[in-house]
Amino acid sequence: MRIDGRQNHQLRPVEISLNVQRYPEGSLLFRAGGTQILIAVSVEDGVRDFLRGSGLGWVTAEYAMHPRANKERQARDSRRGKIDGRVQEIQRLIGRALRAAVVPKQLGERTIVVDCDVLDADGGTRTACVTGGFIAMALALDPLCKDGTVGTGVLREAIAAISVGLVNDEVLLDLCYREDSSAEVDLNVVGTCTQGIVEVQGTSEDAPIPRAQFNALLDVALLGIPQLIDVQMATLKDANVNLTRLLAS
Amino acid sequence: MRIDGRQNHQLRPVEISLNVQRYPEGSLLFRAGGTQILIAVSVEDGVRDFLRGSGLGWVTAEYAMHPRANKERQARDSRRGKIDGRVQEIQRLIGRALRAAVVPKQLGERTIVVDCDVLDADGGTRTACVTGGFIAMALALDPLCKDGTVGTGVLREAIAAISVGLVNDEVLLDLCYREDSSAEVDLNVVGTCTQGIVEVQGTSEDAPIPRAQFNALLDVALLGIPQLIDVQMATLKDANVNLTRLLAS
Amino acid sequence: MRIDGRQNHQLRPVEISLNVQRYPEGSLLFRAGGTQILIAVSVEDGVRDFLRGSGLGWVTAEYAMHPRANKERQARDSRRGKIDGRVQEIQRLIGRALRAAVVPKQLGERTIVVDCDVLDADGGTRTACVTGGFIAMALALDPLCKDGTVGTGVLREAIAAISVGLVNDEVLLDLCYREDSSAEVDLNVVGTCTQGIVEVQGTSEDAPIPRAQFNALLDVALLGIPQLIDVQMATLKDANVNLTRLLAS
Amino acid sequence: MRIDGRQNHQLRPVEISLNVQRYPEGSLLFRAGGTQILIAVSVEDGVRDFLRGSGLGWVTAEYAMHPRANKERQARDSRRGKIDGRVQEIQRLIGRALRAAVVPKQLGERTIVVDCDVLDADGGTRTACVTGGFIAMALALDPLCKDGTVGTGVLREAIAAISVGLVNDEVLLDLCYREDSSAEVDLNVVGTCTQGIVEVQGTSEDAPIPRAQFNALLDVALLGIPQLIDVQMATLKDANVNLTRLLAS
Amino acid sequence: MRIDGRQNHQLRPVEISLNVQRYPEGSLLFRAGGTQILIAVSVEDGVRDFLRGSGLGWVTAEYAMHPRANKERQARDSRRGKIDGRVQEIQRLIGRALRAAVVPKQLGERTIVVDCDVLDADGGTRTACVTGGFIAMALALDPLCKDGTVGTGVLREAIAAISVGLVNDEVLLDLCYREDSSAEVDLNVVGTCTQGIVEVQGTSEDAPIPRAQFNALLDVALLGIPQLIDVQMATLKDANVNLTRLLAS
Amino acid sequence: MRIDGRQNHQLRPVEISLNVQRYPEGSLLFRAGGTQILIAVSVEDGVRDFLRGSGLGWVTAEYAMHPRANKERQARDSRRGKIDGRVQEIQRLIGRALRAAVVPKQLGERTIVVDCDVLDADGGTRTACVTGGFIAMALALDPLCKDGTVGTGVLREAIAAISVGLVNDEVLLDLCYREDSSAEVDLNVVGTCTQGIVEVQGTSEDAPIPRAQFNALLDVALLGIPQLIDVQMATLKDANVNLTRLLAS
Repeated sequence: MRIDGRQNHQLRPVEISLNVQRYPEGSLLFRAGGTQILIAVSVEDGVRDFLRGSGLGWVTAEYAMHPRANKERQARDSRRGKIDGRVQEIQRLIGRALRAAVVPKQLGERTIVVDCDVLDADGGTRTACVTGGFIAMALALDPLCKDGTVGTGVLREAIAAISVGLVNDEVLLDLCYREDSSAEVDLNVVGTCTQGIVEVQGTSEDAPIPRAQFNALLDVALLGIPQLIDVQMATLKDANVNLTRLLAS
Repeated sequence: MRIDGRQNHQLRPVEISLNVQRYPEGSLLFRAGGTQILIAVSVEDGVRDFLRGSGLGWVTAEYAMHPRANKERQARDSRRGKIDGRVQEIQRLIGRALRAAVVPKQLGERTIVVDCDVLDADGGTRTACVTGGFIAMALALDPLCKDGTVGTGVLREAIAAISVGLVNDEVLLDLCYREDSSAEVDLNVVGTCTQGIVEVQGTSEDAPIPRAQFNALLDVALLGIPQLIDVQMATLKDANVNLTRLLAS
Repeated sequence: MRIDGRQNHQLRPVEISLNVQRYPEGSLLFRAGGTQILIAVSVEDGVRDFLRGSGLGWVTAEYAMHPRANKERQARDSRRGKIDGRVQEIQRLIGRALRAAVVPKQLGERTIVVDCDVLDADGGTRTACVTGGFIAMALALDPLCKDGTVGTGVLREAIAAISVGLVNDEVLLDLCYREDSSAEVDLNVVGTCTQGIVEVQGTSEDAPIPRAQFNALLDVALLGIPQLIDVQMATLKDANVNLTRLLAS
Repeated sequence: MRIDGRQNHQLRPVEISLNVQRYPEGSLLFRAGGTQILIAVSVEDGVRDFLRGSGLGWVTAEYAMHPRANKERQARDSRRGKIDGRVQEIQRLIGRALRAAVVPKQLGERTIVVDCDVLDADGGTRTACVTGGFIAMALALDPLCKDGTVGTGVLREAIAAISVGLVNDEVLLDLCYREDSSAEVDLNVVGTCTQGIVEVQGTSEDAPIPRAQFNALLDVALLGIPQLIDVQMATLKDANVNLTRLLAS
Repeated sequence: MRIDGRQNHQLRPVEISLNVQRYPEGSLLFRAGGTQILIAVSVEDGVRDFLRGSGLGWVTAEYAMHPRANKERQARDSRRGKIDGRVQEIQRLIGRALRAAVVPKQLGERTIVVDCDVLDADGGTRTACVTGGFIAMALALDPLCKDGTVGTGVLREAIAAISVGLVNDEVLLDLCYREDSSAEVDLNVVGTCTQGIVEVQGTSEDAPIPRAQFNALLDVALLGIPQLIDVQMATLKDANVNLTRLLAS
Repeated sequence: MRIDGRQNHQLRPVEISLNVQRYPEGSLLFRAGGTQILIAVSVEDGVRDFLRGSGLGWVTAEYAMHPRANKERQARDSRRGKIDGRVQEIQRLIGRALRAAVVPKQLGERTIVVDCDVLDADGGTRTACVTGGFIAMALALDPLCKDGTVGTGVLREAIAAISVGLVNDEVLLDLCYREDSSAEVDLNVVGTCTQGIVEVQGTSEDAPIPRAQFNALLDVALLGIPQLIDVQMATLKDANVNLTRLLAS
């Protein structure tokens, strides 16, 4: 049995509080076990230079750690005057994943900025940002879709993300921090409810892993993702979001 | 009557959620009307060079705006690579005020860092940081006082802060953003329940104001502060903080 | 008697040398006791984005310490690559104070930049910048007022600033560095010759101070300010500045 | 047939010039088709704080684009004063991959720095850095292994990396820049000659891809890697590197 | 005899490999003894603000040290976040020198950027950048001169640069690093084949030097420069550059 | 005749005010025509790493432009967050020149920092910093030499610097800004009263200059320098500096 009593292929409980801030077009607090992230989605007119005049929209993400998201206080990036390499890598993954969930033509020349502020870090923060970020984007786009600002089907399909790892040769889904620290392999997967793959990013921390084990890890991740998409859909329905209008498929 | 239906000398309702983060020694969400601030207190061993060997502790604050604390999204300081001048000014005021609430000798060579992250800005953010910061410091110091890490009476006395302003020649307590924008004078006061003054910072935005009017503003602020200290005391009692042990007076 | 032989409510002698630089529209060296500041006023066409098209002018200040303004050499901000928090706080106060002395409509869409370089720091540098800055602004605006570039009455009224503090329970006016270091309270006041208040910024370094004592401090400051305004007026008259044309009141 | 006349699963020709710089412990110029990278390996005594006293070594990589590695000249990171997010992400991948090729205990408390300077970018730069970086590390460690500075078997096993992508629904190995620009999926794989997986990083640029297609991509990548390892081994043998002593397996 | 067996007034052997990169308009690897520099010339449309509308072109240079150009690895400027003072000084000299070789009117409103990356530093890097930079500029401008983009005679005349120094009271031409380290005087001279002087920059590291000795140093440098210009001309002829069209004299 | 009525080989009048700041060990205001520079010399214990334990001292200079040293206001380096390349080049020249005036062994492990703040720029600022910097160093070292902190003969010999240029084919000494702007050649020379050369830095802005003309320029500069050294000696004698003790020769 796992540190926190879960089965190997069991997700941590997810809790989502909507509209926790006044101003963002979409805002929520996403909790998965001990991980807690504040997500705020802004929809702004205009796009970067390379897309101007194309009629296409863009999605970008910013990821920041609260100084006390961890046991020891860490200096803010703003005080150190530069952005940490790990932060850069993570926010690029989140941006790519959420960009893949949007139909750029239906968005039009608008930029969606997804601000992810990690309040508590207990493993799986980047995947939580993707899963929660999709919900916050849907919240932000629903009224814009309703009033015709953005086109129907602006969201291609629901996506979610989860981590999976190998700990003592067992495949564990949704690693908490302590499990992650001792994992031989750590795989982050972004996917859809029909096992479509949006992004895979995995690293063996020790010995290279055989192909069969890699497949087993990917299998477990792709079984976890639809469960998270169920949570997304239930949350959005409770919030009276018109999913038929919003989703392309 | 005021925009939000309050009397001229009436505070906005205050709501405080304790322990919203896992790791900080003290953590809370402080709401005053539409203003919402996440406050996290860290207690770290050691002090800056100039205090080393003195046996005295130190308090410092960091203030940061969430990119969507306001209507328009603003770039993070970390992405602009430097800290805004207004932010510097505010966090220095918060640090000075909370430092005045601590007895350095009882704290010993420790540094209290008060992280203030503004999630929603609707006026009065710096005073909310002081008022909420005092509560979070008390939460953080209570167990350290209990186990003897810090001395009894490590907190000199309770302090709180409030803004007061002159709008259309009327003295208004606890300005919201729209009131603040049209105020002729804006005064921030940090004080105690016995009308002791810790810090006063006031600016006439337009014509200089007569001494009498300044006094009237200060009077109203000093009447508001004890009400906030009542809230602080009630909150800490509910949380079973031993105030007798913690407070010097 | 005080360290330097002054009475408690006595100002330090002020010396002002005008036009010490070739290019600034207004330039002077301001000495108050051991404090010495080089002040240069530039008047530039144009204003920041938020005022463009408004017909209104703007005033901003920059404050910098010479590396040997103090006993120990300090690194320049430019070499450390960022601006000190204390410097930010001070230059914002100077900017606000001098902005309050100008009638934005009469200035038109111009920006006054007041560069304050502290050559010797012996207490009271921020207030010296305000008092000297007003004179330098008048020097710079006089010819522009004469030739009609800016409107008559572009300066609302004379302002000056002074510090006042509590040392060993006595109220001392215009603290020098050594007095400032041991002051229990330090109050900076910007005001007019008719006791109008432009800005008040005061901090108790130790125990909170009672209202009565705060009032006593403010009283003494407001008695000092008119003496400084006398110096300003005498200096400007000696320089043949047409005050009737320049001042709105 | 492909733009450059290759078969779908065919690698670009690889050319390696050894010892192109005087001072690095290992140095080479790695060319794969139109991509050209200067790789320099430094072996330094000491490790970062978190490893001090552990007896373990560390590997880190820096990746930089020459301003004219592409058609348009790009500003250097050093002139822009910050490191590009893409650069951060890439150099972290290179560092992780090469770290996995080293046995930290045999390296001892030393740090290997792998400098990768892209002189010409024609796709596949990050994988070229990994493949060439392994050779340069072997060149650098061979004499240290010989004289006993580092332990035998300091390199766990040979690793190499390659990209694979889906272009017009066909699986192409080792994408050049033009192929990469139009790829629907881009997968970078770091692996061993026995199909062990060190790192997988793949992104669908458009629609999510089915599991079967992902598997096909991975298959092709894992067939390409052993061919690159053959090139590595041949190059090192020509350079008289003692692979038996150097490799743990 | 000198450390490396040369006569006092003898240059180190120069080797030049042309077109080592794909994209720059002119690119070469310049070796003089143990010094090795990668030079890339870009020709871009447009000039800085102060030249806009003048019809005149501009030349600028960037100089960067590879982290292992020296025995000890040095941090990249981009990682330290600022450009070294020595680097600034050197790249300004290179830019001035190569600017003097161009006829701005014939270049038209274009900017030539000369990127100099030092791969191995063994003395004389700044002069190597000037000598090699002239060749790379000629390579870049030849086709533009042919197709009429830039005017004929866009290069005023050939220039080259060399260092000369006083070591143990002997005048040595083209110092290597070890000689440079022990030189009493170090003089860098940029000149033409007719002993015209473009730039002289010399420093006595110890006692001031008499005028006669300074003259002797300059004499030797001016004899070395024409030999380097012979190498430049031979290299460009081998590359079929039309020097008659390119050179104004 | 020249713009300002001088003969071709005539210096501008020099005025020096000593001890204009309270704290620096040596401080003065140096005026040469319209150029005005505030120079402050600090003598600090300790040296940089590479000299620690050597028993030798060091000299370094910082050069900064006041924002209104020129007609148009320029942003401060500290606000732009980086140091201008021209500033870097100039302060390195000043540091090298003044370092050559000091006997490191007699200074002992101390660092002299020469702060040069240009208040008015009218040509020749870098040479004024050297000439004035020598005087300020002597002022600072005199009492330290007297009390035995530094050795006798800590200053090798007096040095001064001057610019010389070619304007309309005439050799002009000590160029003012307008002359400098139209000069074909600009040569800065640091030397001694016996025509010893410490540093020469010259650039032809247009066509390369013949050797004969270069010699003529250097001749004129070397005749100007002794006149400046006369001013230095007279100033120091007036200030009762013991030159016999201070100067090695």
